[in-house]
Amino acid sequence: MERIRLDYNYVSSAFIKGGMGETDFEQYKEKARLGLSRLIDLVNSGSIGFPNLKGQNTVAMKSFAKEIKGSVNDFIVAGIGGSSLGLETLCDALLPFGYNSLSYGERGSKPRIWVADNVDPSKVASIMNTCEPDDTFICVISKSGSTVETAANFNILYEWLKSNVKDISKKVVVITDPDKGIMRSIATEKKFRAFDVPSNVGGRYSVLSPVGLLPAAVLGMDIDRLIKGGASITSDNYEMILVLASIYMYYMDNGRNMNVMMPYSSRLKSFSAWFCQLWGESLGKRYDRSGKEVFFGSTPVPSVGVIDQHSLVQLFKEGPSDKLVTFIEVLNHESDKTLKSSFPAYDYLNGHTMGELCNVELKATEAALKNTGKPSLKLIIDVLDEYTLGQLFMLYQYVVPVIGLAHDIDPFDQPGVEEGKEYAYGLLGRDGFEEKKKAFTEIYRKQNDFIL
Amino acid sequence: MERIRLDYNYVSSAFIKGGMGETDFEQYKEKARLGLSRLIDLVNSGSIGFPNLKGQNTVAMKSFAKEIKGSVNDFIVAGIGGSSLGLETLCDALLPFGYNSLSYGERGSKPRIWVADNVDPSKVASIMNTCEPDDTFICVISKSGSTVETAANFNILYEWLKSNVKDISKKVVVITDPDKGIMRSIATEKKFRAFDVPSNVGGRYSVLSPVGLLPAAVLGMDIDRLIKGGASITSDNYEMILVLASIYMYYMDNGRNMNVMMPYSSRLKSFSAWFCQLWGESLGKRYDRSGKEVFFGSTPVPSVGVIDQHSLVQLFKEGPSDKLVTFIEVLNHESDKTLKSSFPAYDYLNGHTMGELCNVELKATEAALKNTGKPSLKLIIDVLDEYTLGQLFMLYQYVVPVIGLAHDIDPFDQPGVEEGKEYAYGLLGRDGFEEKKKAFTEIYRKQNDFIL
Repeated sequence: MERIRLDYNYVSSAFIKGGMGETDFEQYKEKARLGLSRLIDLVNSGSIGFPNLKGQNTVAMKSFAKEIKGSVNDFIVAGIGGSSLGLETLCDALLPFGYNSLSYGERGSKPRIWVADNVDPSKVASIMNTCEPDDTFICVISKSGSTVETAANFNILYEWLKSNVKDISKKVVVITDPDKGIMRSIATEKKFRAFDVPSNVGGRYSVLSPVGLLPAAVLGMDIDRLIKGGASITSDNYEMILVLASIYMYYMDNGRNMNVMMPYSSRLKSFSAWFCQLWGESLGKRYDRSGKEVFFGSTPVPSVGVIDQHSLVQLFKEGPSDKLVTFIEVLNHESDKTLKSSFPAYDYLNGHTMGELCNVELKATEAALKNTGKPSLKLIIDVLDEYTLGQLFMLYQYVVPVIGLAHDIDPFDQPGVEEGKEYAYGLLGRDGFEEKKKAFTEIYRKQNDFIL
Repeated sequence: MERIRLDYNYVSSAFIKGGMGETDFEQYKEKARLGLSRLIDLVNSGSIGFPNLKGQNTVAMKSFAKEIKGSVNDFIVAGIGGSSLGLETLCDALLPFGYNSLSYGERGSKPRIWVADNVDPSKVASIMNTCEPDDTFICVISKSGSTVETAANFNILYEWLKSNVKDISKKVVVITDPDKGIMRSIATEKKFRAFDVPSNVGGRYSVLSPVGLLPAAVLGMDIDRLIKGGASITSDNYEMILVLASIYMYYMDNGRNMNVMMPYSSRLKSFSAWFCQLWGESLGKRYDRSGKEVFFGSTPVPSVGVIDQHSLVQLFKEGPSDKLVTFIEVLNHESDKTLKSSFPAYDYLNGHTMGELCNVELKATEAALKNTGKPSLKLIIDVLDEYTLGQLFMLYQYVVPVIGLAHDIDPFDQPGVEEGKEYAYGLLGRDGFEEKKKAFTEIYRKQNDFIL
């Protein structure tokens, strides 16, 4: 089965009180169609590029990967948000758990992978303590180059590398805008190797561009299959996209301000985080495209099955009905193993596989939620590999903007990120941000009465 | 500074529209006092034991840790939920990032740590591929022994170990109920070493018992300091506990059904997950203690700063006002480093430390949220170490049940977990669960109309 399947029984009024009836589906699909047509217009006009990455040339990426293989022990990526979450999803899903602990030989001469995202000094310090500078390659990912966290991590890593290797220009690769921005200038000036993030592909829509694909190639993933999986989402899938968008919009309008993403696979844990950025940053908007104040959005909640059956499921089932849960089922789990009990008390496990147990628990949770009237839907993939992961990425890259555009929300900007960034620049004393520092000082007042 | 501090300026009506005024504080503190007095009664009667772990004997745990040190390369824990989230928090906070990738010498002869939580076959397969069975110790954590996921992982690991070592009884340690349950019987029969989870300490309140402390000792953490940190939360802190509980209750009653936990430190990422279990499973309840149907609870949302400034903060700031954000600030970050720019465009970073940058961004985010009327509060610790982590655990172990008990909710049970578990037993064909299988089959109907 190459096709993703969608089971949306338990959002329907046939099974869930207050669920979607036939007219609801009709009405919301009409709205979704408006969003989809607006998205198609943006794509056709060239403003939005994520659906058009299927034609990209992967030869240079593969040849870069070949060069890295066997030549360095560590590959450190400096990047955050849209420049790191896709990569972390790829690593969780497609590398063995604990990959960085494997020996060089066990890794097939491929490097370990490190992501320097946060400006938490202990994280980058640990990475530098673990890696040998003369055996390390740095990859910096920033479309504009102005992201302060990536700048900080890159500078620290660069200084460390510089004092330990002869020709640093051969140890750095940059993934950035083809023409504009600080990082492109730096790459040109310092003669770093560089790969392009197409200018019409924003950070959180960029995992199937070199942002995700270059590190993926370095780690031995099949990037052609990733691209193919993404490209398999075509107009043939519009019906699924419209149904998904309809369901999400209906429940947003009907008292569910949370959208839980709960794959039943540890390998999709970071996919939940990737989804949360895509959903939250695309849809959480104060103004719509006409400038009307709307404070739009709903909150994505990351979850993982079966783990969270021992954490959040108690609340999902017995708490208020304020969320919609999206499950992902993997029909055939990798390295599945038949259970054999060593102790009589566990004999009921005998003959079942672990993957079967995982999927049985998913069904049990669906049923338990249904019993308290809580809606859920389920995406089903046959196996988790490059192809199906590419499909999942592309599916939600469509669904989320369709929802935004149906409400006349711009799903491709992030104006709210700017203000905090400018305050931070001001506080760091960056030239040109003196006014922001002043504004911050006026806003950031505190009273000792409210400090314990 | 040994004391945790609480800055709650931005929940007050002095700064936030619709925030708490003086009478709100009075009224909600009164309610919180009721919850606290109920909690104290439960503790005094002996039903609830988490505040009384300060007197536990750590000698046996330390001697066990001494024995492990230098004797095995890998320590695998089978446990899930309350048996794994605390440990993962300890590891994230107190071990260097990428600890398992360090060499034996760099780890100071301490073992690598692996947590087999999920019934995702690829995870446990990867762990077994990475570890050498004759150089591995297994630790199984389950209070009752009936947790199916832990049973499955334990059986797989046990079979693997058994066929590779001479005397397996010397390679397994069990942490379980002192008297009752399957796991205790197995430990007795097989002569495994065993440590107790006191019977009045439930899974999600057990991190400062051997559940967290034994693995912590094995990993070289200072378990006395963890206990001391927890024990430092005394009646002197009741004011802070009451204020925190009041704030959370007020906002739950006033349109905020989400509670975001957002520490500004990568090392506290798993603390967010630990908090989410504690909050969600303790408060998400269909019935109160008198049996009235209430569908109580609010949803904990895990987050990490500054990372999520490039993900969820756009929504927190510009989306609907339906959440309260709790920040945690670490004043002095470990291994802090002064930034030195290698490129003129980044000269504004010169002379600042990375930790400073992290904390400046936190303040900028507080201000940006305040600007759109979004409430937040902030816990402040001086450094992140065993002591302050013990404090954070204990603080929330008080705050959450105070909130539950103030509403006459039982914060110590998890009835909603049972139903799904019983369906799963039924589907696996376990004796005695035939009725559950039948019930499941009646509930779990699907129509093909709703499958794409």
